[in-house]
Amino acid sequence: MAQNKKMVEAITSRDEDFAKWYTDIVKKAELVDYSNVKGCMVIRPYGYAIWENIQKDMDRRFKETGHENVYMPMFIPESLLQKEKDHVEGFAPECAWVTIGGSEKLTERLCVRPTSETLFCEHYAKVINTYRDLPKLYNQWCSVVRWEKTTRPFLRTSEFLWQEGHTMHETEEEAREETLRMLQVYTDFYKETLAIPAVTGRKTEKERFAGAMETYTIEPMMHNGVALQGGTSHYFGDGFAKAFDITYQGRDNKLHYPHQTSWGTSTRMIGALIMVHSDDDGLVLPPRVAPIQLAIIPIAQHKEGVLDKANELYNELSKKFRTKLDDSDQSPGWKFAQYEMKGVPVRLELGPKDIEKNQCVLVRRDTREKLFVSLDGVDQAIAELLDKIHDDMYARALENMKEKTHTARNFDEFVETAKNKPGFIKAMWCGDSACEDKIKDVTGGVKSRCIPFEEENLGDVCACCGRPAKHMVYWGKQY
Amino acid sequence: MAQNKKMVEAITSRDEDFAKWYTDIVKKAELVDYSNVKGCMVIRPYGYAIWENIQKDMDRRFKETGHENVYMPMFIPESLLQKEKDHVEGFAPECAWVTIGGSEKLTERLCVRPTSETLFCEHYAKVINTYRDLPKLYNQWCSVVRWEKTTRPFLRTSEFLWQEGHTMHETEEEAREETLRMLQVYTDFYKETLAIPAVTGRKTEKERFAGAMETYTIEPMMHNGVALQGGTSHYFGDGFAKAFDITYQGRDNKLHYPHQTSWGTSTRMIGALIMVHSDDDGLVLPPRVAPIQLAIIPIAQHKEGVLDKANELYNELSKKFRTKLDDSDQSPGWKFAQYEMKGVPVRLELGPKDIEKNQCVLVRRDTREKLFVSLDGVDQAIAELLDKIHDDMYARALENMKEKTHTARNFDEFVETAKNKPGFIKAMWCGDSACEDKIKDVTGGVKSRCIPFEEENLGDVCACCGRPAKHMVYWGKQY
Repeated sequence: MAQNKKMVEAITSRDEDFAKWYTDIVKKAELVDYSNVKGCMVIRPYGYAIWENIQKDMDRRFKETGHENVYMPMFIPESLLQKEKDHVEGFAPECAWVTIGGSEKLTERLCVRPTSETLFCEHYAKVINTYRDLPKLYNQWCSVVRWEKTTRPFLRTSEFLWQEGHTMHETEEEAREETLRMLQVYTDFYKETLAIPAVTGRKTEKERFAGAMETYTIEPMMHNGVALQGGTSHYFGDGFAKAFDITYQGRDNKLHYPHQTSWGTSTRMIGALIMVHSDDDGLVLPPRVAPIQLAIIPIAQHKEGVLDKANELYNELSKKFRTKLDDSDQSPGWKFAQYEMKGVPVRLELGPKDIEKNQCVLVRRDTREKLFVSLDGVDQAIAELLDKIHDDMYARALENMKEKTHTARNFDEFVETAKNKPGFIKAMWCGDSACEDKIKDVTGGVKSRCIPFEEENLGDVCACCGRPAKHMVYWGKQY
Repeated sequence: MAQNKKMVEAITSRDEDFAKWYTDIVKKAELVDYSNVKGCMVIRPYGYAIWENIQKDMDRRFKETGHENVYMPMFIPESLLQKEKDHVEGFAPECAWVTIGGSEKLTERLCVRPTSETLFCEHYAKVINTYRDLPKLYNQWCSVVRWEKTTRPFLRTSEFLWQEGHTMHETEEEAREETLRMLQVYTDFYKETLAIPAVTGRKTEKERFAGAMETYTIEPMMHNGVALQGGTSHYFGDGFAKAFDITYQGRDNKLHYPHQTSWGTSTRMIGALIMVHSDDDGLVLPPRVAPIQLAIIPIAQHKEGVLDKANELYNELSKKFRTKLDDSDQSPGWKFAQYEMKGVPVRLELGPKDIEKNQCVLVRRDTREKLFVSLDGVDQAIAELLDKIHDDMYARALENMKEKTHTARNFDEFVETAKNKPGFIKAMWCGDSACEDKIKDVTGGVKSRCIPFEEENLGDVCACCGRPAKHMVYWGKQY
């Protein structure tokens, strides 16, 4: 039979060729398919199911913090995009432009949204009148387009799925609180759901979002020592409000400009999941986003009673976990490899001897550890095991991040570290973007990741230029 | 205080000006806002919350029938769109074209997807190899663009949100079964969740979807006698499969073309909700999609114990129903009007005298009926009332549809009915599209809605031309 012949092929080793290992995984775990539409990807059912689990979890966190979902148009007229000067400069080079609609040339071309600050502002100008209309705490789930020359699934594509929060507040203080609150929501989500630790802090002026007064970022560390900008949260001040003439009547009966934030995360998080946790046998998914949490594999399934018992277990366990019973005619070995490739956190093996002993075998995907567990209370054992897997995956990722975090006190040390030790480099900085430019040039791409909330004191001078230091900065290469 | 002065203004009467009544409602119930992006709308939090409830319910039904969600690119290269001749002819005139990306003129222009048959087919060509890969049961939630000259919120906009199912099957029989299964899923959803009855059946050849061999439709009747195409389900045969060279190795080891379906519904359903159920005081929402199912309004809330008891009730009831407690300083009368405008199915009033009697007042939005209910077991009373409201709303909508369904046996009767009695006209038809054209011309827009699954015999001849009749057809004007 055709499908029986299909073997689970080995993938490229992670240590040998990280980039090829990554694309092997996204393809063989059936997360995405390439498309003939340049720079765009097809997100296949297994990949999209991960995204649905991410969405459900994040959306709950957004709603618990008082946010509401809306939907804005996908097109931005050029004149609207141009209203905020810094913003348009940042995005215009990446825009896809609609110039023809319904067979006619448009009088004004429309940008396919790369982000929606301008559309939210246009709407806020209409619905914000008094301080009683504030805060406005809106979020949107949608796709955005940023024209890219070189692309990689989930990490950099011309179209991607994301959420973008856009909020308006009475005071600067409230808006700044919101900016940090949402960064914390992201940090909690990364830790509690994706099992991914990260460095958080604010971006240098050079690395800020187009039009923002402050940009905060969450920067997880990939297994190979390359960082990823995992989510950002921006404080805009009242710059957009002024450009879009958004005012409210304050408690003092005078007109004021509200203060604005925006914050976003995207399908790029699936790329982070892969590059933080997975291994040479394929995906390793944290249990809380895994589309299948438990795969039940009957052993010697033709023997009397095996499939009956497997079905009985399935009926019980599928009420509590996202469970798949694979009773196809593939061999158990093929099935093991298949669910390992797909990163299913726990495999449950059940054969005639297990049934005799009223037990089953639980096998962890992350460590390959085998556990013999009584069928009485197996649901409780699985629930605890899933939590333990989550905690262990987080701990290992944290260990990797620590191992890949280095310190440099002067320029030679910096360049040497950048060359030989992939990962974060902690180093003091004078605050001058010229040093950021120099470091990027000399190291072939190392950039400032962020100024952490708690800076260590690694000396008094900038590791690049030797002038007095202002901040400790995390540096690193990025996806 | 500014907000206190804001009154709930009256809206246009439904019988006086249906179109204005409709736009008054979408605006005053804060469902949508108009946008400067021509033909596009902003879906505001209250409108989007209805869509989220619709999505959650439908998505569950799709998954229960074995479907998986995916995400395809939003752009379709012109050459891809042109692969299926009938399809491109149907959609090309409505396309929005991206011609510039990242500051450069594209070598091939890209259509912003009006529907995604072509993209699904391109993907299916890669992932379908043998009969073991079938069926493929994919669905996608996304936005699509069809350039429109005149637009109306939810009913006809240049961009709208929808779901599109695209499936591939081994045999014609299976594909035809799927087409009807999904029409039934839509019909059940309309009845069980939206409380909307409808006529269902197949479209005449003239009204079929571009490229389809058969199109089935669900046609609910609006309050004013105009029909709405509420969802469609298409059988494509193997036309696309041939155009896209999608083949599978069959059980006979030979290559075959798979058989295809697609089916879709959109935010237009929110338009149907409004036009079927609402009245001169605003929205009337069926309980299962209402963002707020229960509004608790304290009466004389400054009196001792009222707010305490209201909060106690809120804490209990919000676990079971989507509940809002409004303890703002607006007057009870203002709040009543506000939640009526928003279509909240049940209002719970609670004042000092009610508390003395250990009771509260429940007021139905749909009938204004007042019920005095003991606080003991009030949760059960509300659950039953919400179900009763749903059933009664469905029954009234069914009654309206029956009242607005007429019969015509000859051309004079047809024209007379079309002129004086808004609604469906049941009439015999010869099967010739020339009669459809003639009827449309003479009546100013009456079109065939569908050939129902169970045709009545209203005579032997076509009501238009007098030649022998082939089918009984539902006719009507449409949105």
